[in-house]
Amino acid sequence: MSITLSTRLRDVRGSAIRDLLALTARPEVISLAGGLPGNELLPRERIAAALAAAVTEPAAVQYGETAGLRSLREVLAQHESRRLGRAVDPACVVVTSGSQQALDLVARALLDPGDPVVVEDPVYVGALQVFQAAGAQLNPVPVDADGMAVDVLADRLARGLRPRLVHTVSNFHNPRGATLSAPRRALLAELAERYGFLVVEDDPYGMLAFDGSPPAPVAAHGDRVVRLGSASKVLAPALRVGWLAGPAPLCAAVERLKQSTDLCTSSLTQLVTAELLADDAWFAAHLDQLRTALRERATALTGALATVFGDAATGSVPKGGMFCWLEFSDGTRPADLLPRALEHGVGFVPGTAFAVGQDLSAAARLCFASNPPGELHTAVERLGAAWRAGGT
Amino acid sequence: MSITLSTRLRDVRGSAIRDLLALTARPEVISLAGGLPGNELLPRERIAAALAAAVTEPAAVQYGETAGLRSLREVLAQHESRRLGRAVDPACVVVTSGSQQALDLVARALLDPGDPVVVEDPVYVGALQVFQAAGAQLNPVPVDADGMAVDVLADRLARGLRPRLVHTVSNFHNPRGATLSAPRRALLAELAERYGFLVVEDDPYGMLAFDGSPPAPVAAHGDRVVRLGSASKVLAPALRVGWLAGPAPLCAAVERLKQSTDLCTSSLTQLVTAELLADDAWFAAHLDQLRTALRERATALTGALATVFGDAATGSVPKGGMFCWLEFSDGTRPADLLPRALEHGVGFVPGTAFAVGQDLSAAARLCFASNPPGELHTAVERLGAAWRAGGT
Repeated sequence: MSITLSTRLRDVRGSAIRDLLALTARPEVISLAGGLPGNELLPRERIAAALAAAVTEPAAVQYGETAGLRSLREVLAQHESRRLGRAVDPACVVVTSGSQQALDLVARALLDPGDPVVVEDPVYVGALQVFQAAGAQLNPVPVDADGMAVDVLADRLARGLRPRLVHTVSNFHNPRGATLSAPRRALLAELAERYGFLVVEDDPYGMLAFDGSPPAPVAAHGDRVVRLGSASKVLAPALRVGWLAGPAPLCAAVERLKQSTDLCTSSLTQLVTAELLADDAWFAAHLDQLRTALRERATALTGALATVFGDAATGSVPKGGMFCWLEFSDGTRPADLLPRALEHGVGFVPGTAFAVGQDLSAAARLCFASNPPGELHTAVERLGAAWRAGGT
Repeated sequence: MSITLSTRLRDVRGSAIRDLLALTARPEVISLAGGLPGNELLPRERIAAALAAAVTEPAAVQYGETAGLRSLREVLAQHESRRLGRAVDPACVVVTSGSQQALDLVARALLDPGDPVVVEDPVYVGALQVFQAAGAQLNPVPVDADGMAVDVLADRLARGLRPRLVHTVSNFHNPRGATLSAPRRALLAELAERYGFLVVEDDPYGMLAFDGSPPAPVAAHGDRVVRLGSASKVLAPALRVGWLAGPAPLCAAVERLKQSTDLCTSSLTQLVTAELLADDAWFAAHLDQLRTALRERATALTGALATVFGDAATGSVPKGGMFCWLEFSDGTRPADLLPRALEHGVGFVPGTAFAVGQDLSAAARLCFASNPPGELHTAVERLGAAWRAGGT
């Protein structure tokens, strides 16, 4: 039988990344394509212990409040308060099924079809899909080594652009690896105030600064900001716990919409997340280990890239997170390189997959988080062999 | 700061039930208001064992495929095949974060604002909210003791109504307690074929037939049907595992939309659900226990209602599920009775909360699943005292 889809779903970009992940899932391929922490970085034993403790309580398997368990919202508010340097009320925190859901709910709560939004270019593809599904009008602003070019945004605003919201991955950008500079954060918060838009500060990687201290969030510079956070990159993806922290009326709207969207997030995984995030000594030690492992991986990847490609390509210098952005200057087009790379046993995502308006055909996203240093060396050697085989 | 909400969110009915649940959460109140299985009916120890087994595998805490874990989709396809009497392909099953998410995704995948949909009256409020959030045009069709009045629907169709979809809770209706009769199922499937709409057969309670055998699903009578199922009522709500089984193009669309909505459902709780649903001997014995407990509770509630209210009110005769529908014939308006009932220590939901177009001011929904028989007796005695105190 045939099914007619809604107009907006027809506008949602099919994820090239997703099709690609199917190819890179072959066991002989080392994948730098996904955006996930390696299994060995996930604190599975600690999670197992927390699960066993949580499930002794009947409430752990029952429905919970739509906005999230009070205990988790309190821990999250404490963490946010420390990041922002001012008190965050637990009532201004909503727990979601991963931070992807937080983004989807914020978009659905605020946007009517045709409403203008600002996205980064290159963009986090999950955000692009959310805004396409909401029928928003997309206005891309370039991202450089200091994050979103807020000066370009300021120009557009001065010339009349009036977005409902501006989306930014402020720390260790996916896919660009960049972190928004402190002056740009201050300016972005000021522009939000002046022009009346909301900043969606999407921050799944902020706790993964290699030196332990990312810059103060955009939300520390003003209050027209909703922050999105996630347990997926610091604890485990399968908890499906994310959150948003922002203005009370937005939280109330998101809560109302979440009720019809999935009723509530799992009480069980919320209890586990609350226990782990509240165990300050354990969590600090865990984050320290995680950052150390990620730094080693980033160093291994960038070192290998420099050795193999020399002047032909420049990699970003990761200071946290999971991604390195590689730009070729020798005419290599990563989208063309990819099929040969897969034959050589390595996968990555071409920059074109993240392009909104820019030409990113010379760039590629490489994830260093999923594989240990030795594998990363092998992966780059294979990539180099594929590149040389291309004869560019 | 002020936040302007999207047009459609402003159309979503605030849930009177939700506000009510806050009142009935007071420890001195016996709540017949919620729609949840009592804690003592949830197989917590079996879930704890399955969790402990699942978490020994790294994949249990990692991201999973958006459409759901293959092992779970296979088990679900087997269960659906048995229900339908024909083979269901696992590729035509998508795992969702509760069946509420399945409903939301189906609506978003198919509906443009203004598209006509048919809802039941009284309606499952979660469905009403989903369709309001999608901006759909609501066409209510009454529900009686044999489920949706499909003859009324047939009349409307003959007179030109062309809905995109028709939503029905076919088994042990929430809130009406009724089950769609077999002839009406056949007719509904035939009308779907003739007029080209999709039936959304929302079936969270079908496995809770007191005699163990609900009628063949609407989907057994035709293929323009998507079935929604849930682990919440037969295993535990905190698994947040639901599913849909339906036409392949719809599954593909839902999967694409789910990716931007929450990426995937928890691998961990999917593994637990797959293990429990695949353990045929255990699951059959568990369902048997659950049905027996629910039947005892239903009998306790309806017996007490007959004793206390006599001819002044008629309760539906539950044959499964969790709800009894009580209709007063003495002029009592449950919405007016409720404040007194809460003072007397008992809560329920007035029929008006479920009304789309009908006058349901003489009716009330009572949930018998959350409390053991002794508590249900006490609850009805309190309700009787509140009713007598009202002097109607």
